[in-house]
Amino acid sequence: MARFMDEDFLLDTPAARRLYHDYAEGLPIIDFHCHLPPRELAEDRRFRNMTELWLGGDHYKWRAMRTAGVEEKYITGDAPDYEKFLCWAAVLPQAVGNPLYHWTHLELKRYFGVEEPLSPKTAPAIWERCNAQLPELTARRCVERMGVKLIYTTDDPVDTLSWHSQLAVESGLSFRVLPAWRPDKAVNVEKEGFAAYIAALSEAAGLPIKDFEDLKAALSRRMDHFHALGCRNSDHGLDKIICDESLSPDVALKKGLLGMPVSEREADCFKTALLLFLSSEYKRRGWVMQLHFGAARNLNSNMFRRLGPDTGYDGIRGDAGAGLALGRLLDRIDSAGGLPRTILYSLDPTDNAQIGAVLGCFQGGGVRGRVQQGCAWWFNDSLPGMRAQLTSLASLSVLGCFVGMVTDSRSFLSYPRHEYFRRVLCSLLGRWVEDGEYPADYDTLGELVKDVSFRNAAAFFESED
Amino acid sequence: MARFMDEDFLLDTPAARRLYHDYAEGLPIIDFHCHLPPRELAEDRRFRNMTELWLGGDHYKWRAMRTAGVEEKYITGDAPDYEKFLCWAAVLPQAVGNPLYHWTHLELKRYFGVEEPLSPKTAPAIWERCNAQLPELTARRCVERMGVKLIYTTDDPVDTLSWHSQLAVESGLSFRVLPAWRPDKAVNVEKEGFAAYIAALSEAAGLPIKDFEDLKAALSRRMDHFHALGCRNSDHGLDKIICDESLSPDVALKKGLLGMPVSEREADCFKTALLLFLSSEYKRRGWVMQLHFGAARNLNSNMFRRLGPDTGYDGIRGDAGAGLALGRLLDRIDSAGGLPRTILYSLDPTDNAQIGAVLGCFQGGGVRGRVQQGCAWWFNDSLPGMRAQLTSLASLSVLGCFVGMVTDSRSFLSYPRHEYFRRVLCSLLGRWVEDGEYPADYDTLGELVKDVSFRNAAAFFESED
Amino acid sequence: MARFMDEDFLLDTPAARRLYHDYAEGLPIIDFHCHLPPRELAEDRRFRNMTELWLGGDHYKWRAMRTAGVEEKYITGDAPDYEKFLCWAAVLPQAVGNPLYHWTHLELKRYFGVEEPLSPKTAPAIWERCNAQLPELTARRCVERMGVKLIYTTDDPVDTLSWHSQLAVESGLSFRVLPAWRPDKAVNVEKEGFAAYIAALSEAAGLPIKDFEDLKAALSRRMDHFHALGCRNSDHGLDKIICDESLSPDVALKKGLLGMPVSEREADCFKTALLLFLSSEYKRRGWVMQLHFGAARNLNSNMFRRLGPDTGYDGIRGDAGAGLALGRLLDRIDSAGGLPRTILYSLDPTDNAQIGAVLGCFQGGGVRGRVQQGCAWWFNDSLPGMRAQLTSLASLSVLGCFVGMVTDSRSFLSYPRHEYFRRVLCSLLGRWVEDGEYPADYDTLGELVKDVSFRNAAAFFESED
Repeated sequence: MARFMDEDFLLDTPAARRLYHDYAEGLPIIDFHCHLPPRELAEDRRFRNMTELWLGGDHYKWRAMRTAGVEEKYITGDAPDYEKFLCWAAVLPQAVGNPLYHWTHLELKRYFGVEEPLSPKTAPAIWERCNAQLPELTARRCVERMGVKLIYTTDDPVDTLSWHSQLAVESGLSFRVLPAWRPDKAVNVEKEGFAAYIAALSEAAGLPIKDFEDLKAALSRRMDHFHALGCRNSDHGLDKIICDESLSPDVALKKGLLGMPVSEREADCFKTALLLFLSSEYKRRGWVMQLHFGAARNLNSNMFRRLGPDTGYDGIRGDAGAGLALGRLLDRIDSAGGLPRTILYSLDPTDNAQIGAVLGCFQGGGVRGRVQQGCAWWFNDSLPGMRAQLTSLASLSVLGCFVGMVTDSRSFLSYPRHEYFRRVLCSLLGRWVEDGEYPADYDTLGELVKDVSFRNAAAFFESED
Repeated sequence: MARFMDEDFLLDTPAARRLYHDYAEGLPIIDFHCHLPPRELAEDRRFRNMTELWLGGDHYKWRAMRTAGVEEKYITGDAPDYEKFLCWAAVLPQAVGNPLYHWTHLELKRYFGVEEPLSPKTAPAIWERCNAQLPELTARRCVERMGVKLIYTTDDPVDTLSWHSQLAVESGLSFRVLPAWRPDKAVNVEKEGFAAYIAALSEAAGLPIKDFEDLKAALSRRMDHFHALGCRNSDHGLDKIICDESLSPDVALKKGLLGMPVSEREADCFKTALLLFLSSEYKRRGWVMQLHFGAARNLNSNMFRRLGPDTGYDGIRGDAGAGLALGRLLDRIDSAGGLPRTILYSLDPTDNAQIGAVLGCFQGGGVRGRVQQGCAWWFNDSLPGMRAQLTSLASLSVLGCFVGMVTDSRSFLSYPRHEYFRRVLCSLLGRWVEDGEYPADYDTLGELVKDVSFRNAAAFFESED
Repeated sequence: MARFMDEDFLLDTPAARRLYHDYAEGLPIIDFHCHLPPRELAEDRRFRNMTELWLGGDHYKWRAMRTAGVEEKYITGDAPDYEKFLCWAAVLPQAVGNPLYHWTHLELKRYFGVEEPLSPKTAPAIWERCNAQLPELTARRCVERMGVKLIYTTDDPVDTLSWHSQLAVESGLSFRVLPAWRPDKAVNVEKEGFAAYIAALSEAAGLPIKDFEDLKAALSRRMDHFHALGCRNSDHGLDKIICDESLSPDVALKKGLLGMPVSEREADCFKTALLLFLSSEYKRRGWVMQLHFGAARNLNSNMFRRLGPDTGYDGIRGDAGAGLALGRLLDRIDSAGGLPRTILYSLDPTDNAQIGAVLGCFQGGGVRGRVQQGCAWWFNDSLPGMRAQLTSLASLSVLGCFVGMVTDSRSFLSYPRHEYFRRVLCSLLGRWVEDGEYPADYDTLGELVKDVSFRNAAAFFESED
């Protein structure tokens, strides 16, 4: 029987142990998609206690607590921090098989040296012991200790990027923080607040926005600003894959600017046109394009009114169109302005095969891994989810070209997820060696482990192809 | 090599064996969804021979026999019972990997003490040996021997529930039999026979039904009757998830009452309105709402004409809408009358993740496990299906809150499926302990096993939240 | 640790080894669906070097090479053959977990006696050693060495089948080569070239084709020709499942004959009518009907213009309709002319359960395995894909009735895929024995292995049911 989460956690074969300890362990981290607030890195935020650090904005934990019958007062409400912590400690042991269980203990081990499992019994001592270390464990320290070298945050086109500017000139930092372009608010023409957003964009760009040409000009100017601060990375959150050019984008835009209702078809045409424009800009500038799709957001309208978005009320659509629809969209982008280096993430795990198959249709041009399936995202960012994504990708594409893991997290403590991913990767490769499915060729596999854990991502975001 | 289905069947680690034998084995059973006929319990039915008991209404076995080339005469036809039994015994060994293989042998072991595998060679002796025990093995004995404490049958609103009344006052029964409300015939306005059904409902309720308000009143009165006999449980069989309020429900109802054709949209609007009404009633009365969806029924029209429904000609739709559509329906129910405690079952195993994700959007209010994914249903009620459901649920929700297994069966011999489920559960947990993914904390895991095997269901159906 | 791909490759239990070596190994092969060119068998083609034999038309390898950053010049372009071979050897080691890795080494071992893994280091010696054997390794030798007894090629209705005629009368051949009827070009009324194709069909049949009745007559005459040459097998490539009879097929046909645009609905009605006609003909003649569906073809329009179809630019649609839609189509076929023996293949692995469930709805008539799920197809033809298909089929149907493996390949070296399949099958069965899920009854399991590996297919294509 393996000991609970010891140094060989998940490394269930001799080959896995060798691959992890000799090749993966200690490699630097490139986190090319996350939601860390650059301000907190610039100001090097400190945390009052474990509840603030751990439970403050973590809707994964909130969902688990609600499921286990904890009242909202102890989740997002005004209960004392210590009581909230105790509630979480009481829920966690019931969450066997949930990634939260492993994340929690990796975080306790790697950041705080706590080896006992969190439970109602151990919670008081862990609370004391961790809190005592928090004065030392600032936002930057969280990042540095895990060997992170590069972080791409997620930023709106209207953002001044002042915190990024400040971080860029600071000496003595062991990591870089670059902005990533996420223009969802400019894309979602049918949403409330679109007109106000476009006004802010116009202001930020110093250009009037009256029609689609103006919008393109304004976005282009903001891209110049992002590019100057090192951005080579973009991201879109699409509900479902669309590709409709049957109407002019100005139809929706003009209604949106007036706050008038926009039909689904009008919105789709606007979004398609904007995506074609933006992707051609990414291509021209050598940026990466990330597409995240398939989320059904804010499903609980009572709780949305009470708590707003990103509070644990999102699901999986199930009809995002990762097959034929995605293929047609990528083809249209490729024909229009050329497909940039692209990373595709679906929230629906049953899309793995469709994505794995579509990748191969747009590889080429001598670029290694030009189109990628992103690592298992959000609800799939779990042991079975990562294994399924890796197995599918290996089977349908070339695993050695994979750009690997991102945290996609708002938490400064999330960096052990890269370790978790690397252990899963080495476990999978080790199993294939153990079973005689791949030669025990550690030179080759070791290089592959380094590529997928770190080097492919480094090359992908430094390429200009 | 493990011995075939011995006492440690499926318990492939020391931890699994300890969890099963020390905690799960011998726990009582709550079977909160099945199709046992209450009359046969009230009359304590006896069975003529194994063919009547085993093959009489079991369309799982019928499908396997048809697949293996057995003629219909030996399945649902007039061949002698012994010949039918021999046919089944010849097919079973070819069904390796099918849950029928394990169900059959668990049933032979637990009810009849037969340890040899059923095959053409052993069939004659097994036929004799089992038949000899049938005079003792009445319907009630089947239930009692497996430690069943509570059965929810599946009952139509027009049912008088006379058998339930009779069972309720009987002394000396070691188990309770409660009715569960299944109003599908009142919902399916587009189906043949709707008008006649509504007439029967009107009669049963003692109220005229001319419009939607009347229908609500009549159903409400029948719910009172069910409630008085202990019903706290409802169930709906939906083809696909719908949520359309663009028309008045009276449009479809009036056509349905006249036997006129009802369009899909009219029917959807009627069904949505009725579901909103009924769910608000369930909420008000403290009943559980079960939704089963995703079946494609009676696909073979030749055989439907010959044998009628529930004879082995159903499939999986594949487009039921377990993601966005289900989220929207639950939200509408929640906003309209409050979401009752709810259990969701899809027939499509690729819906696991969508359901696991949507659960978390409607948990809360301090109720433990308010919204549940039901255990692996029908075509998924197999070893790989149960493992997939448990793994998905654990990963996306809190496994310790799960209400666990139901038989969903018409057979009095189906109770070992609870044992099968508990073995799968303990095997999964034991594997996590063995692999160092969860601490070897038997106190915590033992309680979790008891919760999922029995106590959560007990609490769920006794709650009034 | 198992040695890399030794004689016990994938046979990870004693039971698996016994089942494979005592029962499966050395059984003849029936390859009832492939794309081998009959001309090359008739002429007994020779190959210049390994690049011609291995990389000449293999779009699986091309996709992997493009993904790894190889330039098109070294894939489909005019680079020297040896350089192409070296490029492939450099890519392969990165493709861990891809079926290409195992196929490559099975082919090197079984046809060439090469035991070292292919890599940049070993490539020069392997190039020499294999090329030296090519004068001996003609097309026919590739087939004979693997014990192939029957090949069904894939042939167009207009084909004269002259190569098949020639092969039929040749003495001394250890295998038969029969034509299979693939009328896609007659079905795809909306595609460019339809009118020209119908002209060729008219010519081949010696009948004018002006309306749907003419078309049926012409196809029927061509079926007579195929039947006379031993064809008992048909195949359709459907994008998605359709069943629409709301328009006369003549609407689309007449537009198609004039080269006019055909709407989706018109095309669907034409295709439905033609499928109903053809399936009734298959039934009448005792032919098997294979349906392949779910591909999204030619997604990359730039590369389609450059390289044409079947060059590695196909994906998975994701909306093919393997559940309700397929059930309705099969029912309509069954009602119209009677459902022939049928094999269903979806390109979407998430369709496994839907197909497994629908099979059972159309079994019967005393025919063993009348409706089949085909083996894991194309993107699913991998270790995890085969395991998933077999596990799903076993769980939902009767594994012992399965007709088993086909290569679906254009390559003369693809026959070790049957060995690969048999190893996977024996591994699965062996695991069930090892885990106590099935008795260690080698007589029964050995017969089942023979059935699934060879005998079921032999019976299926010789039956007239």
